Amino acid sequence: MSNSEASSNGTGASELFQLLRDGEPRTRAQLAKSTGMARSTIAARVDELMRMGLIAPVAEAASTGGRPPSQFALRSSARVVLAADIGASHANVAVADLSGTILAEHSEPVSITLGPVDVLSWMLQTAASLLAQTGRDRHDLVAIGIGVPGPVEHSTGQPVNPPIMPGWDRFDVPGWVRQHLEVPVLVDNDVNIMALGERATAWPTTEHLMFVKVATGIGAGVISSGMLLRGAQGVAGDIGHVRVARGAGVPCHCGNTGCLEALASGPAIARALREQGADTQNGSDVVALVKSGNVEAIQAVRQAGRDIGEVLTACVSLMNPEVIALGGSMARVGEHLIAGVREVVYTRSMPLATGHLSIVQSTAAGKAGIIGASMLALDHVLSPAAFHSLAGRR
Amino acid sequence: MSNSEASSNGTGASELFQLLRDGEPRTRAQLAKSTGMARSTIAARVDELMRMGLIAPVAEAASTGGRPPSQFALRSSARVVLAADIGASHANVAVADLSGTILAEHSEPVSITLGPVDVLSWMLQTAASLLAQTGRDRHDLVAIGIGVPGPVEHSTGQPVNPPIMPGWDRFDVPGWVRQHLEVPVLVDNDVNIMALGERATAWPTTEHLMFVKVATGIGAGVISSGMLLRGAQGVAGDIGHVRVARGAGVPCHCGNTGCLEALASGPAIARALREQGADTQNGSDVVALVKSGNVEAIQAVRQAGRDIGEVLTACVSLMNPEVIALGGSMARVGEHLIAGVREVVYTRSMPLATGHLSIVQSTAAGKAGIIGASMLALDHVLSPAAFHSLAGRR
Repeated sequence: MSNSEASSNGTGASELFQLLRDGEPRTRAQLAKSTGMARSTIAARVDELMRMGLIAPVAEAASTGGRPPSQFALRSSARVVLAADIGASHANVAVADLSGTILAEHSEPVSITLGPVDVLSWMLQTAASLLAQTGRDRHDLVAIGIGVPGPVEHSTGQPVNPPIMPGWDRFDVPGWVRQHLEVPVLVDNDVNIMALGERATAWPTTEHLMFVKVATGIGAGVISSGMLLRGAQGVAGDIGHVRVARGAGVPCHCGNTGCLEALASGPAIARALREQGADTQNGSDVVALVKSGNVEAIQAVRQAGRDIGEVLTACVSLMNPEVIALGGSMARVGEHLIAGVREVVYTRSMPLATGHLSIVQSTAAGKAGIIGASMLALDHVLSPAAFHSLAGRR
Repeated sequence: MSNSEASSNGTGASELFQLLRDGEPRTRAQLAKSTGMARSTIAARVDELMRMGLIAPVAEAASTGGRPPSQFALRSSARVVLAADIGASHANVAVADLSGTILAEHSEPVSITLGPVDVLSWMLQTAASLLAQTGRDRHDLVAIGIGVPGPVEHSTGQPVNPPIMPGWDRFDVPGWVRQHLEVPVLVDNDVNIMALGERATAWPTTEHLMFVKVATGIGAGVISSGMLLRGAQGVAGDIGHVRVARGAGVPCHCGNTGCLEALASGPAIARALREQGADTQNGSDVVALVKSGNVEAIQAVRQAGRDIGEVLTACVSLMNPEVIALGGSMARVGEHLIAGVREVVYTRSMPLATGHLSIVQSTAAGKAGIIGASMLALDHVLSPAAFHSLAGRR
């Protein structure tokens, strides 16, 4: 077989696999029609993908009797990916199959300030025990997706000037991990992966989605035309330090005044309520107070929603999203925060941009990060460019 | 030849063409190395592309004597595209080659309010005379790019609820044009194509660029990771109606108050200066006054720049662009407008996002739209998906 034939065979199998990766069963005839390949070519490619274990006959079709099975679909258990959602003080690791279903998961308090070697070593140990727990081994593993709480240079997977990650600046995360597990390693900002996770969970057909995390800080992950926006330095979506009208003179930890984060983050609301005599030390205390029906706390959260809405109005005009999902620990206060956001965005934006805009609470909630990290890995490994690494495993 | 072989050959030629479309000359050995194809396959594909007229031997290599020419490059004169930049009251049509060089161009006052049939008929007549003028005919034409002053649904090329384009709402622009010229027709918003034109002219390697048009209205075209952002309803970049701090109570034609456009557009600055006793009827009068050194006019333009900067600060945080280029008729006032923008953006944004950010005057200026419309057509027709339509012409 010449080089060019080998490459054309690989391409054919990859092309079929791209069609089948959505999990929908298809017949050989449907595959031939969609690809324009000859029936005989389709038959050979289907056999090839079956031998790799990447696709399988669909059960009902296989049970029709003597004829060969007529429908095929992705075999989602064929391979697994590793997902890690590493926060400032807490980390979550999971093993997921090719459909993104989480097979096993473990989370515990881990401080990002331990530095990359300690945190990533913990991740690898946890991964090994999760793989064992699911009866899989490292040869089943085809990619790793990692979210970290700081800006990441997309092309290299290196954190760049991350403000709360001492020791991680320019650390070669993919290179270090690949010394231990030789598969593609994808790294991204934690809010970016939450946007991926939210979309996969609740809005799989949406091409334009913003995920806004409101917690100790405020940040956004933005998907436009189905792609994550990363920006020139990987800091796209860093909306916490946009100035809001109500902020005049309020100091922010960034050194400026009037930043959204200085007014509407969990600690900022807690501080404002303390000044009114409440005993709120942090965002969790605020959430508890709101849930107890405290009017001052409800008003403070509503106003924080308006502040966030002020910044999101500019985002809506710039991006024209279909969905804005609010997540992060402060989103647990429920409708009060969203009500403030909606009030301002729907008042202040052009009807064309808001006519079909949904502003909702995150559905994925606490799972957005870990689901998103598995999506980051899957989007890479199921892409045409990575087909050879997928086909070569096992 | 079987179907699958035909498709694999087509793929091979297309793949080579993708490499060569940048205009850089390459040897067969370089092409083999980049594609992984066998040398014999490369030789066949190069001959195929030469027969189609899409590539040609490079002159100096061809002159080395008896051996066959060793370097090949895109033959940019092989085909042409048609570009149309249709504004509210003025339109520009051009014929460009495959490298985007404009071969012939014509502009004249045309009111968008004439409606799609009259405006597009004018465009076709102008195109026919430009083709004749360049010695080309309609068989050389491989795609058409059209910019219009309103939101466009990307998938269909139809204007959707365009505020200043009576009769164009949901008009099937590509369908109508293709009744007369059977080539792909791409339609986009005028500020979006200006962003493409600016990038092609001054920032060809930049992946993250915002083009801000300041004229009768204010709008932006945003390129992120090399792709134009369009948003769910095609209104991404519509930043003219974001509220600015200074705007409290100032009525805008959109029905809201305090919009950027009500403070910082050409007509808004002219109005503010009239209230100070100047004889400024429109943006052009403001530009003339600034150029004459009038201090009040310079101050008004500087303040408009600060207002624009206020909105762009949010855009910088959200998008993390590398370049913001200011264009449109008001950008002709020179550095005063940009100075105001810079003052606010550099004061208010996070250092990570502004460390490598250039805020500059548009280089393409009045040509941004027509160059961008040709880029819109070229990006489509030179893409792998459109290779067959390109190969099939002539």
